[in-house]
Amino acid sequence: MTDWPVHARFDGPIVLVGFGSIGRGVLPLLERHLAHDKAKFTIIAPEGDIRGLAKERGLNFIARALTPDNFREILTPLLTQGPGRGLIVNLSVDVSSVAMMDFARDVDAFYIDTVVEPWAGFYANPHASVAERSNYALRESLLDLRRRRPGGVTAVNCCGANPGMVSWLVKQALVNVAADLGIDAGAPAGREEWARLMQRVGVKGIHIAERDTQRAKSPRPRGIFVNTWSVEGFVGEGLQPAELGWGSHEKDLPPEGRRHETGCGAAIYLMRPGAGTRVRSWTPTPQAQYGFLITHNEAISISDYFTVRDGDKVAYRPTCHYAYHPCDDAVLSLDEMAGAQWQPQPEWRILDENEILDGIDELGVLIYGHGKNAYWYGSQLSIQEARTLAPYQNATGLQVTSAVLAGIVWMLENPDRGIVEADEMDYRRCLEVQRPYLGSVIGTYTDWTPLKDRGVLFPEDLDLDDPWQFKNVIVR
Amino acid sequence: MTDWPVHARFDGPIVLVGFGSIGRGVLPLLERHLAHDKAKFTIIAPEGDIRGLAKERGLNFIARALTPDNFREILTPLLTQGPGRGLIVNLSVDVSSVAMMDFARDVDAFYIDTVVEPWAGFYANPHASVAERSNYALRESLLDLRRRRPGGVTAVNCCGANPGMVSWLVKQALVNVAADLGIDAGAPAGREEWARLMQRVGVKGIHIAERDTQRAKSPRPRGIFVNTWSVEGFVGEGLQPAELGWGSHEKDLPPEGRRHETGCGAAIYLMRPGAGTRVRSWTPTPQAQYGFLITHNEAISISDYFTVRDGDKVAYRPTCHYAYHPCDDAVLSLDEMAGAQWQPQPEWRILDENEILDGIDELGVLIYGHGKNAYWYGSQLSIQEARTLAPYQNATGLQVTSAVLAGIVWMLENPDRGIVEADEMDYRRCLEVQRPYLGSVIGTYTDWTPLKDRGVLFPEDLDLDDPWQFKNVIVR
Ligand SMILES: NC(=O)c1ccc[n+]([C@@H]2O[C@H](COP(=O)([O-])OP(=O)(O)OC[C@H]3O[C@@H](n4cnc5c(N)ncnc54)[C@H](O)[C@@H]3O)[C@@H](O)[C@H]2O)c1
Ligand SMILES: NC(=O)c1ccc[n+]([C@@H]2O[C@H](COP(=O)([O-])OP(=O)(O)OC[C@H]3O[C@@H](n4cnc5c(N)ncnc54)[C@H](O)[C@@H]3O)[C@@H](O)[C@H]2O)c1
Repeated sequence: MTDWPVHARFDGPIVLVGFGSIGRGVLPLLERHLAHDKAKFTIIAPEGDIRGLAKERGLNFIARALTPDNFREILTPLLTQGPGRGLIVNLSVDVSSVAMMDFARDVDAFYIDTVVEPWAGFYANPHASVAERSNYALRESLLDLRRRRPGGVTAVNCCGANPGMVSWLVKQALVNVAADLGIDAGAPAGREEWARLMQRVGVKGIHIAERDTQRAKSPRPRGIFVNTWSVEGFVGEGLQPAELGWGSHEKDLPPEGRRHETGCGAAIYLMRPGAGTRVRSWTPTPQAQYGFLITHNEAISISDYFTVRDGDKVAYRPTCHYAYHPCDDAVLSLDEMAGAQWQPQPEWRILDENEILDGIDELGVLIYGHGKNAYWYGSQLSIQEARTLAPYQNATGLQVTSAVLAGIVWMLENPDRGIVEADEMDYRRCLEVQRPYLGSVIGTYTDWTPLKDRGVLFPEDLDLDDPWQFKNVIVR
Repeated sequence: MTDWPVHARFDGPIVLVGFGSIGRGVLPLLERHLAHDKAKFTIIAPEGDIRGLAKERGLNFIARALTPDNFREILTPLLTQGPGRGLIVNLSVDVSSVAMMDFARDVDAFYIDTVVEPWAGFYANPHASVAERSNYALRESLLDLRRRRPGGVTAVNCCGANPGMVSWLVKQALVNVAADLGIDAGAPAGREEWARLMQRVGVKGIHIAERDTQRAKSPRPRGIFVNTWSVEGFVGEGLQPAELGWGSHEKDLPPEGRRHETGCGAAIYLMRPGAGTRVRSWTPTPQAQYGFLITHNEAISISDYFTVRDGDKVAYRPTCHYAYHPCDDAVLSLDEMAGAQWQPQPEWRILDENEILDGIDELGVLIYGHGKNAYWYGSQLSIQEARTLAPYQNATGLQVTSAVLAGIVWMLENPDRGIVEADEMDYRRCLEVQRPYLGSVIGTYTDWTPLKDRGVLFPEDLDLDDPWQFKNVIVR
């Protein structure tokens, strides 16, 4: 493709916070699709050595780490230089999303991020309770802010690939399955109607079902955590409790499962780290696979969004959780870290597009338990194709950065929606913007269930009446 | 080394059954250290395509698979051609060790193998009970044969690296720890004295603690089980129940633990496959690591051998089990196979010495629970060094084949000992023969216990009073 469409024009100042694998990758997409003033584009990240890439492109670079004490001071002059509203694109680790959003409202700036990130020290704080270290708690802190400061300039939360794009895929998948079941989906107008459609289609749950088959050219060295995206991000969430949106069809809380005492009530957490919790799942390439039940914002937001209430009672809710098979090098890195009793490796490396031999990131949603059993819908993007589409990123990165692009475009088109989650955005428009960067997007049914081939050589405690009970999904 | 010693002279016929990674690797060692008549050396294996290597070296090759119906017919003429006794070196899969040993006694031939191998179909037989598919049952069938046919021509069972060499390492390690604790080990004369020494030193248990860091030059393709030794062997034992010699200090049977109703009583089995069971362990290179609790003969034989009885009562027994971290490609292969609900991959590959970039096989025994906490004693053999020592094998292979060599030498020096296990052989002599092929052999203490760094981010059900309870070792 040579004729890339310019989706929006933005004259105000732009501040990109964080310049890691995602920050770097979003840059060429913004240059391509967002008409803007380079002189007003600032990148902030602590690493001075990456200044070069910014300078090369005529952008300002501030080599600072944002902290609770300095971020307002650093950001205010940048965002208030006009004309009009500023835009914060937060693609950092260790910088609080909620604090940044609160601040964005103070200076009337647009804001987008890809995760509800806390300030440094949150994930591995041994003094916090397990519930306090959950994504549920992080999301509730965001919902609190929204209740406190409703409306106003749009701020898009958790708008990467997942969380983010997968919320849009869920809606498209649901519409597809409804059609194939002969159910008239109509045009659901808001949360309640979407939730009722999910209920009518008979969905019991959703896996965010991902397989990253990207293989490094050289074998992983011991002592280094290798991944295709933020190692700091992955290690952080991997050490959080496993969490999942807890569907109304689930019969028994898992033995290590706990409910939260406050908040939306859509999710439970397990008293164990996601990086040490495997679940059975399915994606088209490997078919049946074990994924890690890494906690993710979307597991909670999707289950919450699709909840049907009958007065105060939950009449319907789908289970939702991540089932992530990262790239092989990350599997080995997790094995090593687990073996060291969760002490992270002293070094890490994110594989860039030139260090990868081949493979795809296959990221989609597995919508299960309905009349056609299960349907996977998602993106299969190869590293080869990613290289031809945009520089500075591997396949994983491009799925994320293109969602950030879509989120920014939608935000500029919907400038006064207050704080929103990806579930609340226009999934069609977002997927339309993102589509050129997703490789093949396919939907496919499977007759796989977590009962397949179970209990052959060893007896297992299974729920044979309902294949899709979480009890059958978790690996013991 | 250019002056390799000839350890023994053997004029009778030799039959090598199985010509895979171990069979091939044992060949140059036999040529080097065992004076014999090539014209009387026959290799039997079903693969016709490997005939070349045998012919090249002037050996006979029979491209047949042995079965319960044909093996006597095929082997008898080969082994009875004289002069003197014949020698069977069984390095195959799917050929029953017990049947072969029984036959060897019929034709008065020496016999050695590296595992109590069953006939084909045993490991993945869904109709057999879990107990019937255990190594405990296989070993008991061997002990039955020994009871039925005591004495006579020597037959060495389970004499590879592990089972095999590690039984010799256990004795050397025990003597070393005793010395360091100022305990006079004396010169234990037989099983009872060894067991009492183990008890006096205060050993609670032994991990066969292995880390294979050999890395392939090219990344593992999906759908292929890759390992550094027999994939068929590893998959077979990985699908057997996890098993361990069950020490007298253990307080509680694990929830999925079962005792056997008959036999020596030294071991328990778990109602889960070893390939799906991880344990915390330690070797010098990675330090703390997760290993797989793959069932192995030595876990049972060592615990049995070192049992002190007081009349009918067990007064002392060490726990013993394997804690195996195979090469990275095998970790990924197991992950893939587990994800496919234990359906083995359609293809497999054993990495030969030219396909490996670097790494070592670090195989030893971790003797724990005594006055100096824990002591690892074993071999660290690198692929680079293995290449300089002997052709046709990687580091893993050479640790095995040199143990087979040692076993044959010992057997020829002790020709009328009947059926023996590695624990019953002269560990000094065997290690002496094997030593040139083991790379560095080191002993090192560690203050690591399975309680290290536990319960930091998540509460865990631990036995804080006794770090070395198996309950603390198994990964939940
Ligand atoms: N939703 C999704 O699909 C998705 C996918 C990938 C990554 N992410 C998230 O996006 C973020 C970035 O991911 P990445 O792969 O680029 O991570 P990365 O580790 O490659 O980069 C993180 C960047 O943040 C910067 N940073 C660290 N501390 C900072 C501070 N105090 N102030 C300012 N910058 C700071 C780092 O210097 C670096 O530039 C992470 O939070 C990650 O979890 C989301
Ligand atoms: N004790 C140890 O330390 C140790 C270590 C490695 C291997 N082993 C054992 O040694 C054996 C050989 O290991 P490997 O790595 O060489 O295995 P491999 O898979 O490379 O080779 C197995 C060989 O057995 C042959 N075979 C298969 N069926 C046969 C039959 N019916 N009759 C005759 N031959 C048959 C195959 O054709 C092949 O030549 C296995 O049983 C394995 O478990 C023991």
